[in-house]
Amino acid sequence: MRRVIYLDHSASTPVDARVLEVMMPFFTEYYGNPSGMHAQARASAQALDRSRWEVAEILGCKPKEIIFTSCGTESNNLAIRGVAFAAARAGKGRHIITSACEHSAVTQTIAQLCEHFGFQQTVVPVDRWGMIDPADVERALRPDTVLISIIYANNEVGTIQPLAEIGAIARAHGIPLHTDAVQAGGYLDLNVDRLNVDLLSLSGHKFYAPKGVGMLFVREGVALLPQQTGGGHERGRRAGTENVPYIVALAKALKLAHDMRPTENERLARLRDHLIQGVQTALPDAQLTGHPTERLPHHASFVIPGVEANALLMYLDMAGICAASGSACHTGIAEPSAVLLAMGIPRQLALGALRLTLGRSNTAEDIEMVLEVLPAAVRQLSAL
Amino acid sequence: MRRVIYLDHSASTPVDARVLEVMMPFFTEYYGNPSGMHAQARASAQALDRSRWEVAEILGCKPKEIIFTSCGTESNNLAIRGVAFAAARAGKGRHIITSACEHSAVTQTIAQLCEHFGFQQTVVPVDRWGMIDPADVERALRPDTVLISIIYANNEVGTIQPLAEIGAIARAHGIPLHTDAVQAGGYLDLNVDRLNVDLLSLSGHKFYAPKGVGMLFVREGVALLPQQTGGGHERGRRAGTENVPYIVALAKALKLAHDMRPTENERLARLRDHLIQGVQTALPDAQLTGHPTERLPHHASFVIPGVEANALLMYLDMAGICAASGSACHTGIAEPSAVLLAMGIPRQLALGALRLTLGRSNTAEDIEMVLEVLPAAVRQLSAL
Repeated sequence: MRRVIYLDHSASTPVDARVLEVMMPFFTEYYGNPSGMHAQARASAQALDRSRWEVAEILGCKPKEIIFTSCGTESNNLAIRGVAFAAARAGKGRHIITSACEHSAVTQTIAQLCEHFGFQQTVVPVDRWGMIDPADVERALRPDTVLISIIYANNEVGTIQPLAEIGAIARAHGIPLHTDAVQAGGYLDLNVDRLNVDLLSLSGHKFYAPKGVGMLFVREGVALLPQQTGGGHERGRRAGTENVPYIVALAKALKLAHDMRPTENERLARLRDHLIQGVQTALPDAQLTGHPTERLPHHASFVIPGVEANALLMYLDMAGICAASGSACHTGIAEPSAVLLAMGIPRQLALGALRLTLGRSNTAEDIEMVLEVLPAAVRQLSAL
Repeated sequence: MRRVIYLDHSASTPVDARVLEVMMPFFTEYYGNPSGMHAQARASAQALDRSRWEVAEILGCKPKEIIFTSCGTESNNLAIRGVAFAAARAGKGRHIITSACEHSAVTQTIAQLCEHFGFQQTVVPVDRWGMIDPADVERALRPDTVLISIIYANNEVGTIQPLAEIGAIARAHGIPLHTDAVQAGGYLDLNVDRLNVDLLSLSGHKFYAPKGVGMLFVREGVALLPQQTGGGHERGRRAGTENVPYIVALAKALKLAHDMRPTENERLARLRDHLIQGVQTALPDAQLTGHPTERLPHHASFVIPGVEANALLMYLDMAGICAASGSACHTGIAEPSAVLLAMGIPRQLALGALRLTLGRSNTAEDIEMVLEVLPAAVRQLSAL
């Protein structure tokens, strides 16, 4: 594959070489099933334990509060279905509060609970920056509310929510707060006590671990009905032979991201700001989406009038630039993003969404190249 | 780690070097999210498509009938919960038929459906070889039966079930048949039409792909309520970014196992028969568990009077032999296996279970070593 400028890190990242290195021995050298009772099994079990400790240290929680999963989507599903079914069983109610800027792994899971299992939801709105007002969450509370699920940082527009404030409200009312921290992982503080959260989902491939591994923090005492049953893995909360290589990888990748965070976030934010400024100078009609300051450091997103996102992505792709629209564009059907619509962006404008998410490999030269190609692309497509 | 004789292939296998080779580029070179719209994404999406075709060819099904999952346990969970909830929703009933020799991924999933969601089950018995009588399955059918779930080959005793006969009965009554083929994968015929099955679960790490990837065949027309919701991945039946490296690995590993099967099964069966004969000669009280002929080619399992399984495993481990008891021994608490009890083996005897499962690396010398160490171990432990 020729050298491309990869600006789709919110969709997936390459595996870091240092992560790959610690993962590799678990494919062919230490391959025992951690549930076994022999040298091979012990090597796997020890790696699993160590990884759990490492992750717990970064989250500021107990190792036993960590459940390793197969991805961020599974983590979100387990958190929501697990808490909802356990609470309903305990007679606590069937009402869930969520927001208008969640990932589909949250919205679709709550939708299924409502459609098939008698649950109800309240969706709190977002402002024009995609920001939630904590007071709206408090107003949505009902006596039968059993869960609040609020995204930490949005995948399409990068806006960071006031999670600790929402968590304080949740705590005051004794309702567990889950956060989809998939996009925040690797970039923002993940300390579960500072964030006031009771459940927190992460996905490895957003911070340079492989696709196919995730993690769910569940605070001790939060009741959860397992969604994958079988052997007693993960303290009976998630059955299935543990994916030892990827779990080792996730722990290493999280530690690396945590350690690199101060300097790398600053570097990324500088590149991102240069990119945003450059786009707005070259394309005065382009509108930044998401919050101007409370946003992920690597995340630049726009809506561009008169341009259809898929056409723009194809143009950029041909020029060697990997970008995204932020909406589910892979079907080739142009559907405006529900998050952008919730932010009050008109339907037609929302079809011109562009998301550029930076990462470790990106340099100032990459940004210059984008600032050269993108305006030309927009002008050419607008002229059609 | 010093050289060990690994005889726990039913618990997990090392990743084959040829599998590793095709998997590696997808960590660092082709790392795009297959849902994206650029060169990186396309490379991933194409590998995913190709893998689906390769697996479908071996199963004799359509590519779109394959759902990639995170493990065999997830496949079993999705098959059972997915069909059960969809059928209940359609008003067809809430009765499930299963057997007394299933893996916990099946038994625990049905148990949760019964305990939390109003389902009922009939468990058909097994004979002293762990074999199911298809007539018992037919007798268990009720007007509200919505699913039959029968294991293909048992993990503890290796017995192969008369699946095609059971499938013919299921088909005659219009009830979908699911099979947990996790232990059969790599060793037995997986053609879904010859087997008469409607759903079939596989797990990659049982046939030299990594731990953390599985697959579920769902015949076209079988209704399934998704158990992991979010993006539209896997045709809306299993949300979550696809684990491209492991999916590529699973397809390659399945193809290799399929191609090697005729010669490798013969080689393994010869070693296994030598092992079984040797154990029975040296330890006349040891009793082979499972069917004497209708069993997996790499699978030898025994109960040994007067011996406690965990103690024996520790002894073997110290001698460099990795073995299993076949029961959930990893907690250190000696619990007799439900499958062995269902086969009529007395509780005390069932505590002395030993499972030796062979694989590609094992040689005739390994077997000689086991036949030297094992009888000495049993005599020493019996004397305690």
